[in-house]
Amino acid sequence: MNPPILPRTGIGIDVHAFAPDGEARELWLAGLYWPGERGLSGHSDGDAVAHAACDALFSAAGIGDLGTHFGTARPEFAGAAGTTLLAEAARLVRAAGFEIGNVAVQFVGNRPKFGPRRQEADTVLSAAAAAPVTVTATTSDRLGYEGAGQGITAYATALVYRPEA
Amino acid sequence: MNPPILPRTGIGIDVHAFAPDGEARELWLAGLYWPGERGLSGHSDGDAVAHAACDALFSAAGIGDLGTHFGTARPEFAGAAGTTLLAEAARLVRAAGFEIGNVAVQFVGNRPKFGPRRQEADTVLSAAAAAPVTVTATTSDRLGYEGAGQGITAYATALVYRPEA
Amino acid sequence: MNPPILPRTGIGIDVHAFAPDGEARELWLAGLYWPGERGLSGHSDGDAVAHAACDALFSAAGIGDLGTHFGTARPEFAGAAGTTLLAEAARLVRAAGFEIGNVAVQFVGNRPKFGPRRQEADTVLSAAAAAPVTVTATTSDRLGYEGAGQGITAYATALVYRPEA
Repeated sequence: MNPPILPRTGIGIDVHAFAPDGEARELWLAGLYWPGERGLSGHSDGDAVAHAACDALFSAAGIGDLGTHFGTARPEFAGAAGTTLLAEAARLVRAAGFEIGNVAVQFVGNRPKFGPRRQEADTVLSAAAAAPVTVTATTSDRLGYEGAGQGITAYATALVYRPEA
Repeated sequence: MNPPILPRTGIGIDVHAFAPDGEARELWLAGLYWPGERGLSGHSDGDAVAHAACDALFSAAGIGDLGTHFGTARPEFAGAAGTTLLAEAARLVRAAGFEIGNVAVQFVGNRPKFGPRRQEADTVLSAAAAAPVTVTATTSDRLGYEGAGQGITAYATALVYRPEA
Repeated sequence: MNPPILPRTGIGIDVHAFAPDGEARELWLAGLYWPGERGLSGHSDGDAVAHAACDALFSAAGIGDLGTHFGTARPEFAGAAGTTLLAEAARLVRAAGFEIGNVAVQFVGNRPKFGPRRQEADTVLSAAAAAPVTVTATTSDRLGYEGAGQGITAYATALVYRPEA
């Protein structure tokens, strides 16, 4: 009998501040473009949801983090879209010998209003990772920097496993 | 041979502010009533622990979040107890074809002193979910809104799986 | 046929403030000593990464939290190193009948610069737990108490399971 699969858990957190007033910057979050919304800062597109998903995958596989893989040593990822980073993270995790079970992300922030586009986000991020990615949202009851509208925090968990030989 | 069971992970975060001075509001947290403690605000009973558990279950099953299921479209849940919401969340997850492995929640806050009632909370929440739910607590070393006594943050993970046919 | 192994998930969060100016205190984080860095406060060595790992293990096993096991009732752990606490947490989890799948931790903080010593941290913490422990790091884009350089937050998930008889 084949042995049972024991997956590995990973965790990822990512925070991005909203861009300052007067800085024209588009909002990209959870792999989607949000017209008319204030953008998030960052060297990349600031997509905290996609970045937390990447970090949870790296964490589960034990192969480092965003800084390891998308830092200054790999300038080709400067300014990259969240979905580009997530696809590359999934590729790196598979190259390390793992399959991806699923990734779950929840972000905390006042904006954007996420519910109407949740399934669209799941579809886009799942396509990027070639594995199930689900995204949910909440607010912080007006507390903290999220409640003050200064930024967004995304929290992710992931399961990966080594396929049976 | 049956395929191995690969569970799905989910994550949930919930924040509630303590009610303002002079507002008579009971504290309900982790499914328990805490006499003599300042209550948490919210349209429901403000039970951040139960709400984070719900969101982790929804996240793992990929069926949305608290806003999806207990928002303004379902006014019968306005003011509902945390245990009521958790029981309904578990029912929805099972209706979507999943079984619940377990749910783990840790909350960050100065109050209430949780240790003496931890096992009572586990019993009440596990009964509501009809699955193992465990709750732990910590403080934030006086940092952030939790350290200032302004609110509580609860973080939860959950595992769900599709039963073998 | 043996039943499949279904692991249990756990979550742990730990926050420590940096020690005040003028207080000579060494920084211990992720099981490592960081020369020349400002230390973290706490009754123990303030190793938020190791503490979050402990709490995630306790949470997954459903046997309480840091306060339950390393509180004032067990003064022999006052001032203990993070690796000592993690080894004891792993022992307690195994004594409760579980094996450890893995533990994943990410910390949020401006300092220390973690990347160059990540693998060293993984090695030290994995040895302490006698199970795979992986650590990653991020910043909070200058937001919150982490961004203000006031403290560090560590978030951990763990998987444990009951070995087949």
